[in-house]
Amino acid sequence: MARQKHIYLDEVDMPKQWYNLAPDLPTPLNPPLGPDGKPVTPEMLAPVFPMNLIEQEVSQERWIDIPEEIREHLFRWRPSPLVRAYELEAALGTPAKIYYKNEGVSPAGSHKPNTAIPQAWYNKQFGIKKLTTETGAGQWGSALSFACSVIGGIECKVFMVRVSFEQKPFRKMLMNTWGGTCVASPSMETQAGRDILAQYPDTPGSLGIAISEAVEAAVSDPTGKTRYTLGSVLNHVMLHQSIIGLEAKKQLAKVGIDKPDVVIGCCGGGSNFAGISFPFMYDKIHGADIQIIGAEPFSCPTLTKAPFIYDNGDVAQMTPLLAMHSLGHNFVPAPIHAGGLRYHGMAPLVSAALRDGLMEAQAIHQSECFEAGLLFSKTEGIIPAPETTHAIAAVIREAKKAKEEGKEKTILFNFSGHGLMDLVGYDKYLNGELHDYEYPESEIALNLEKLQGYPLPK
Amino acid sequence: MARQKHIYLDEVDMPKQWYNLAPDLPTPLNPPLGPDGKPVTPEMLAPVFPMNLIEQEVSQERWIDIPEEIREHLFRWRPSPLVRAYELEAALGTPAKIYYKNEGVSPAGSHKPNTAIPQAWYNKQFGIKKLTTETGAGQWGSALSFACSVIGGIECKVFMVRVSFEQKPFRKMLMNTWGGTCVASPSMETQAGRDILAQYPDTPGSLGIAISEAVEAAVSDPTGKTRYTLGSVLNHVMLHQSIIGLEAKKQLAKVGIDKPDVVIGCCGGGSNFAGISFPFMYDKIHGADIQIIGAEPFSCPTLTKAPFIYDNGDVAQMTPLLAMHSLGHNFVPAPIHAGGLRYHGMAPLVSAALRDGLMEAQAIHQSECFEAGLLFSKTEGIIPAPETTHAIAAVIREAKKAKEEGKEKTILFNFSGHGLMDLVGYDKYLNGELHDYEYPESEIALNLEKLQGYPLPK
Repeated sequence: MARQKHIYLDEVDMPKQWYNLAPDLPTPLNPPLGPDGKPVTPEMLAPVFPMNLIEQEVSQERWIDIPEEIREHLFRWRPSPLVRAYELEAALGTPAKIYYKNEGVSPAGSHKPNTAIPQAWYNKQFGIKKLTTETGAGQWGSALSFACSVIGGIECKVFMVRVSFEQKPFRKMLMNTWGGTCVASPSMETQAGRDILAQYPDTPGSLGIAISEAVEAAVSDPTGKTRYTLGSVLNHVMLHQSIIGLEAKKQLAKVGIDKPDVVIGCCGGGSNFAGISFPFMYDKIHGADIQIIGAEPFSCPTLTKAPFIYDNGDVAQMTPLLAMHSLGHNFVPAPIHAGGLRYHGMAPLVSAALRDGLMEAQAIHQSECFEAGLLFSKTEGIIPAPETTHAIAAVIREAKKAKEEGKEKTILFNFSGHGLMDLVGYDKYLNGELHDYEYPESEIALNLEKLQGYPLPK
Repeated sequence: MARQKHIYLDEVDMPKQWYNLAPDLPTPLNPPLGPDGKPVTPEMLAPVFPMNLIEQEVSQERWIDIPEEIREHLFRWRPSPLVRAYELEAALGTPAKIYYKNEGVSPAGSHKPNTAIPQAWYNKQFGIKKLTTETGAGQWGSALSFACSVIGGIECKVFMVRVSFEQKPFRKMLMNTWGGTCVASPSMETQAGRDILAQYPDTPGSLGIAISEAVEAAVSDPTGKTRYTLGSVLNHVMLHQSIIGLEAKKQLAKVGIDKPDVVIGCCGGGSNFAGISFPFMYDKIHGADIQIIGAEPFSCPTLTKAPFIYDNGDVAQMTPLLAMHSLGHNFVPAPIHAGGLRYHGMAPLVSAALRDGLMEAQAIHQSECFEAGLLFSKTEGIIPAPETTHAIAAVIREAKKAKEEGKEKTILFNFSGHGLMDLVGYDKYLNGELHDYEYPESEIALNLEKLQGYPLPK
């Protein structure tokens, strides 16, 4: 077959259904639990999310239709290209074929709009006029602002962790350009924010506080027309992201590849990893020999070191208890540059897949990741987001292994986003100012001890 | 025909030759002149550029082969998609079909790598080990760093205007990530820089000084292995950019469009405009009815207000005299946010096309441009670079005209780059802090008076 770097898919061939891993899991998913230890009912979630998304959250349907209007919104950048990394392969001298799904082509520069568009659309369908959310590094807040902007008729309000808000003014400008509102959290706009500011006027803020504010702003709207959104972790987010892997399958088939041998994604909350890998887990469950690897930061080793337990999704303990791998909801990860991977927990679907042996995980230091990111920039040309470099580092490990073994493996990975707005990490790496962090074993143990009395997943 | 937003071109269908407008001009191009008023010979340019690029600069061949290795480097992001702006059309309620060539998909985010790759490659072929250049806003310096990085074996040194260097630290990081070196100009590394700093230690720098430094750094290398590069204006740059329009032609044909009715690009030095329009000028010269519009800033009205004269390409008067529209080489444009359009002159090929009636020009205030950019962001989703918003504003004018006239025109424009690294202008616009600038008629007249005694083009 002739050398072909980009494999495109026609719009008519973009998947018409999302794939839901839940019904195919060998062991059934443990339900989210309320403070009373009983499963949370859809009705209990109704003040926070619209019922059409709650239905997706709890669905046991394998295939869920993508509404035609959502498909048209996604056509702004989808189907995303599948790209053969010829230049990276050559630099590594590997016999492996490396393919990546370039999710950096979205207007917001990452895979996040894949779920921002459907979330905004379903909320609008449900009569919602305003969405709230929190953002750390700013990727999710940008994606949701983008989605609300292009869908129209729905406001977007983002609570951004104050220290990031101040350090990354361009992220706020990006949200503003798409018509979103972004305030530093804690803010004076919610009771939660005012309480914290009264006590700690100089607090740098945290994702936990920002979540509290975003949820409060949603549930306290007297018109009932505001809802909260989350960019990862939840089942319906994984569902929306499955379009990545479904497209990749079709694109691989176009170049005569029946199945990849290895599928790799980086793992923070789990959404981009789930997006690329779940459709291949379906094949694996049905007998295909596919190695599936989640790459995470060594300093936040959720999949590689944390127990599979019930824990809150947030520091403020506002969310239901989720069955997942967790370092404890009080765990504060080291300040690595891959902000999107600094999460104490994991999407319950990803954790279930790990527990059931459908995937494995690798923890990688950020210096190895930035080195991988630089090699990618100098071969393929695109500068990866710090999060994405974790996947690339794992790919390089596998490609070198293939070289040692002399095997012509096909490696597929998710290029979850470009790094044009996150260059500070590269700058520090090049100036020798980047630190690697060990995971704080004793602190994690201490955090986990506090969870005694929490129910245990089956 | 079914709704199809993206029109891709297979790699095998990417043009194998660039198009050179020079031999097709109704009136022959006026040659560049030396300080003695005599045409510059290729030998005189040899210390500055490699001979293989000088040959392209003076070539009268209509079609010039693209070496296979360059094609493979371009495949990293080319052929770029042609996109139907359905959502923008709907927002305008226009019967016009609007298509844009998305050059923002390059790793550097603009059309500049289309010429950076061949320039670096030809220099390397010629045995050159290091390239120097200047950069204002940073787009060209980034593109050249990218090109040197992926081609390998060739260093890149960028002199960046000091005020931009300090205001835009991310641009420097971007160049560094690709292995380029970027210093604030004036620097202590050249005689030109040292002289200026001795006299004005606090100077903000200027593009003129940066050019002087970059040229000096090239010609003064005792090994003779350093050359200078320019990202616009020159004939060989226009040649390399012609791939944009050549691809667009093939893509329009794929959706059954014989020819566009209107072709639009923004004009600074002329390279992205030439890239999209020159292949259609060929058709126009051969009888096709195509309106071709260059959009420029009202505050820097080179095509709409300046005379067609011989003038220096730079403030420091180091370049040969070029036959072009010029506001005078001492003209300092107002500080608009489209840094890439703040140039006193114009590519001689573009100026010749204007003189020969092959195109027309429109001058637009930046507030109209940012408004157009916001509409584009909220419909198509991608945030355009400030330069690109000038093309979009002109497109909107034409689309509204088509609506008034009830004509189903096809409008094609060059989306020259995304604005993810240039959000400050949007921020100011949204905060009501953006000013429009009239062009300083008396200052221009004064600058032009100083050119008395310069030869006149035929």
